[in-house]
Amino acid sequence: MTVRFGLLGAGRIGKVHAKAIGSNPQAKLVAVADAFEQAAKDLSVAYGCEIRTIEEIESAGDIDAVIICTPTDTHADLIERFARAGKAIFCEKPIDLDVKRVEECLAVVRQTKATLMVGFNRRFDPHFAAVRKAIDDGAIGDVEMVTITSRDPGAPPAEYITRSGGIFRDMTIHDFDMARFLLGEEPVAVTAHASVLVDKKIGELGDYDSVSVILSTASGKQCVISNSRRATYGYDQRIEVHGSKGMVAAENQRAVSIEIANGDGYTRPPLHDFFMTRYTEAYANEISAFIEGIATGKKAAPSGEDGLVALALAEAALRSVKEGKTITI
Amino acid sequence: MTVRFGLLGAGRIGKVHAKAIGSNPQAKLVAVADAFEQAAKDLSVAYGCEIRTIEEIESAGDIDAVIICTPTDTHADLIERFARAGKAIFCEKPIDLDVKRVEECLAVVRQTKATLMVGFNRRFDPHFAAVRKAIDDGAIGDVEMVTITSRDPGAPPAEYITRSGGIFRDMTIHDFDMARFLLGEEPVAVTAHASVLVDKKIGELGDYDSVSVILSTASGKQCVISNSRRATYGYDQRIEVHGSKGMVAAENQRAVSIEIANGDGYTRPPLHDFFMTRYTEAYANEISAFIEGIATGKKAAPSGEDGLVALALAEAALRSVKEGKTITI
Amino acid sequence: MTVRFGLLGAGRIGKVHAKAIGSNPQAKLVAVADAFEQAAKDLSVAYGCEIRTIEEIESAGDIDAVIICTPTDTHADLIERFARAGKAIFCEKPIDLDVKRVEECLAVVRQTKATLMVGFNRRFDPHFAAVRKAIDDGAIGDVEMVTITSRDPGAPPAEYITRSGGIFRDMTIHDFDMARFLLGEEPVAVTAHASVLVDKKIGELGDYDSVSVILSTASGKQCVISNSRRATYGYDQRIEVHGSKGMVAAENQRAVSIEIANGDGYTRPPLHDFFMTRYTEAYANEISAFIEGIATGKKAAPSGEDGLVALALAEAALRSVKEGKTITI
Amino acid sequence: MTVRFGLLGAGRIGKVHAKAIGSNPQAKLVAVADAFEQAAKDLSVAYGCEIRTIEEIESAGDIDAVIICTPTDTHADLIERFARAGKAIFCEKPIDLDVKRVEECLAVVRQTKATLMVGFNRRFDPHFAAVRKAIDDGAIGDVEMVTITSRDPGAPPAEYITRSGGIFRDMTIHDFDMARFLLGEEPVAVTAHASVLVDKKIGELGDYDSVSVILSTASGKQCVISNSRRATYGYDQRIEVHGSKGMVAAENQRAVSIEIANGDGYTRPPLHDFFMTRYTEAYANEISAFIEGIATGKKAAPSGEDGLVALALAEAALRSVKEGKTITI
Repeated sequence: MTVRFGLLGAGRIGKVHAKAIGSNPQAKLVAVADAFEQAAKDLSVAYGCEIRTIEEIESAGDIDAVIICTPTDTHADLIERFARAGKAIFCEKPIDLDVKRVEECLAVVRQTKATLMVGFNRRFDPHFAAVRKAIDDGAIGDVEMVTITSRDPGAPPAEYITRSGGIFRDMTIHDFDMARFLLGEEPVAVTAHASVLVDKKIGELGDYDSVSVILSTASGKQCVISNSRRATYGYDQRIEVHGSKGMVAAENQRAVSIEIANGDGYTRPPLHDFFMTRYTEAYANEISAFIEGIATGKKAAPSGEDGLVALALAEAALRSVKEGKTITI
Repeated sequence: MTVRFGLLGAGRIGKVHAKAIGSNPQAKLVAVADAFEQAAKDLSVAYGCEIRTIEEIESAGDIDAVIICTPTDTHADLIERFARAGKAIFCEKPIDLDVKRVEECLAVVRQTKATLMVGFNRRFDPHFAAVRKAIDDGAIGDVEMVTITSRDPGAPPAEYITRSGGIFRDMTIHDFDMARFLLGEEPVAVTAHASVLVDKKIGELGDYDSVSVILSTASGKQCVISNSRRATYGYDQRIEVHGSKGMVAAENQRAVSIEIANGDGYTRPPLHDFFMTRYTEAYANEISAFIEGIATGKKAAPSGEDGLVALALAEAALRSVKEGKTITI
Repeated sequence: MTVRFGLLGAGRIGKVHAKAIGSNPQAKLVAVADAFEQAAKDLSVAYGCEIRTIEEIESAGDIDAVIICTPTDTHADLIERFARAGKAIFCEKPIDLDVKRVEECLAVVRQTKATLMVGFNRRFDPHFAAVRKAIDDGAIGDVEMVTITSRDPGAPPAEYITRSGGIFRDMTIHDFDMARFLLGEEPVAVTAHASVLVDKKIGELGDYDSVSVILSTASGKQCVISNSRRATYGYDQRIEVHGSKGMVAAENQRAVSIEIANGDGYTRPPLHDFFMTRYTEAYANEISAFIEGIATGKKAAPSGEDGLVALALAEAALRSVKEGKTITI
Repeated sequence: MTVRFGLLGAGRIGKVHAKAIGSNPQAKLVAVADAFEQAAKDLSVAYGCEIRTIEEIESAGDIDAVIICTPTDTHADLIERFARAGKAIFCEKPIDLDVKRVEECLAVVRQTKATLMVGFNRRFDPHFAAVRKAIDDGAIGDVEMVTITSRDPGAPPAEYITRSGGIFRDMTIHDFDMARFLLGEEPVAVTAHASVLVDKKIGELGDYDSVSVILSTASGKQCVISNSRRATYGYDQRIEVHGSKGMVAAENQRAVSIEIANGDGYTRPPLHDFFMTRYTEAYANEISAFIEGIATGKKAAPSGEDGLVALALAEAALRSVKEGKTITI
């Protein structure tokens, strides 16, 4: 079986998904749509697919599934349209920055029985997936405490910040999903501290660039998340899970793992520069899982509901900072 | 110059300090006192020192300094007595479990102008000290975020828990001191989550065995502390400091650093079994610093005030758990 | 520009190259030939290329280059035929097991001015390439001593051994090429010790499974190679280069880099299982370099001469074992 | 039981042993002898022992054992004198630079039934000892191949070189002993390559500064040794043992194990600066083993015979370089 794809949005992340589809023997990229003509053209040439409008893709008989990589504020509308059009949907996170809007959208998805998978790519990273597998295999007993470190190499431009919904909805949301993926139990309490240490402009826009979060579950499991928009040494992505019988951790990755030693010491190169190189395998695995889900009829994960819960945790974290207290969910 | 010591308390930690004194060419162990006769005798034989009562040490003309390793509830009284007796005092943490009592005690120390150093041994660990030195040398720019992981290999007996003042005053207090040592700015807000995951009996005694804490300073620096009374793989002691220019970290230590590889993978031995072996060098360096302080007249650090602030942070953390909110200091 | 490929041989390594061509935007796989019909068919379906005979590929006007992945004893003949047919040639190592035959073949290549690149894939491994780059960048000063460790996860079947030309020509030959790649000066003396420790059958076939080799250059640079047909922990591939100013090393790679800690210690998974997974990127980079060479007219490297020198070192090593002395080249 | 020591030679290594004796509860340093008065005086003050002549120590009734740390050319004579005087003897390696002289000396030791232990300190390093223990415990099955890396941080002065007997007798000799300690079978063939890459003056004195050695045993086990008088990054001391079931390795050690990360990458400090700091524990353990041997009557190891065999391997390696062939023993 071959799944035939329409790609909505031919920007940075759209290209990543186009490549993943291109190298997957079970998938075929049929058409791409983008408001910016040149971007669509480039992808069309590179992957030998057509350029179509969103309407054309919506009504196309030769397209089974769409990948939504358009700006965030179009996600919910597009999900609803393509759910009604009977296409399987993969949507980049977040579905929307507003919890209510997400809930409405998911109601349509449920009603239409559409397949919806949300782009929490890190679940598909081979190292993080191996951490989860070690837990599932019982290697560390019952999960007790999780530590997630996620630090971007640098702050995004102000323009990005204004559209992002703030650090919790934009960046920490990945860690909230990872926490749920690893804890095996829903967080019921959230506390966050946040400040502006990297870039004053971020503060002027009402956002933060450095945050620490604690999540707790009903049974007392805890997760600590540490985020920053600064990491001079590359894209810092680590997880560590402690259980009743032991610990499992995934260390950072680098493109090249040599070591140079001299009078200054032993030096290894910086980490991957950002998510495009760090999560190459994760993006490919994610699309494979989406395709496999369509092929086998297995429920998509992470689902729209997973997207909703992560967003709710982001909102709770923001409230915790504003109100100086632990937020119960 | 040789500093002549009286040792109060010949238990586990007393022996560690006796050994440190014994191997320091500037120090001499003159006398030991312990309510338990055999313990005093053992040390007296091993180090060729006299057995005396506390009163005798107090009034001795041949003793310059005392090391207080007696039970916690005697610390404040002993500090006051020996401050008045004109001896330099090294006291194991904590001075007392009650902030008020510590304040009274420190008033006596100030009044008598006594030298008082408190046993936050980790500041003297060569690896942690090197982290601090890297910060002082400007290697990472301005400190922004600190992560401290401290996990005991196993839970202490119930009897110990009841006298300990709880996990924050007994265990996290070391991390509060380390946070202050590394942040270079006083924490002004504390939030903690705590639960019982390791040993139900600890919960029955009203204490916790698993805690996560966030500290913030006025300028927005943050510190995350992760503690557990369980670590099946040994005594887990790590710190990581992020600054505007980079990161410095101290990894775990093991007695033997070999690696065995076979079909199961690559295996390194567990970590040190506990603080006695992990912090051997730290204990020796600590006593050296105490002696050097006496010899040079330099103010002792960590001081009684450092002990007090760490205790206050422990109390705030406990209140944060009880009240479910961030405590401002 | 697109380079149009014919693939000779659709076995294990042929598939690797087909995939590399398939994912290279500058390359197109036009045809595949294999004596074993099903293998050719499988590749033809997977990559949408034709099945042709070797003769058809030889005379094809729509093919610019060939990849030779047929059995070793056909390499030299095929190189000569395709050199005369004016195709660019990539040939898996070795060109032949016999030095004389290789020399004859290379004479034809020179005469026809054909492009010939030999498949020493490891030069294109990103980690080993980074080691070489560090040397070229002057990071370690003048190269002095090189250590190469190459251990296969297990011994090949007897059938393979009989056709392989022995461990020096089959396995160590990669390390001889790597030594030359890193030393920057030709070895002039070779000493080897060899024995049978892994599998007696290998000894019965007149071969060895465990060898140690020292190479020296005229200026006194040294390289030590350590080989075994056994490594229970995966495919062990390391290099270490010492220079006048420092050292650069490439450590082993694993598919998944997590660590599990418990009472038994800290365990990381075994290494890659063998060259197919360990050198995935190297194979892709190798074909890219071949294509780029064709596109730019740059001389192919590693060349046929590189293949010849490595083979001569293998023969010298074997003589050293047999005669118990250092062989001068 | 307390073993009463006389120390012959109060130089660099003499001080190390004095400290080891001083901190061993079963040992007492009674007297020190040194031709250089001030050196003897310094030690006498630091450890509260007498200054005596060698003759006085020889005839002393209050001395059970001697530590010989005098210049190499006095070792054999002193061993014979103290063997006849009935003292237990610990002698720094080598016994002598000449195999014949060592054999004569060991004849006297045998005749007098004296206890003689030779200072191959590395056997007592906790990491290397743990490697040996792993082998003894069966963790890697039958030992097959050993790799020993030993690189000094810098070349010694010319004056030292002239008295040293050359790199094989001075430096590699430690590795020959380690090879025997780990192989569990005597080497029967030695091949070495040697050159001058670090310091021309060393070549002018007829010595080498960079050597590679292969040892083989009768059953085909192999050991590769890599030595250099240069390592800009500190004292490089590693061993790696491959067996039928797996591998065990001891990595390098550093005084401080922090890591600093920034745009240049991740940097750990250089290694220990040399043997005095790298092998502190080894020296202490070595003296403890000597004392325990005296106390229990267990045969001393490494013995004089171990010293002799290592020396013979050094001579064979030198012959191999000179004659360009493998030397059979």
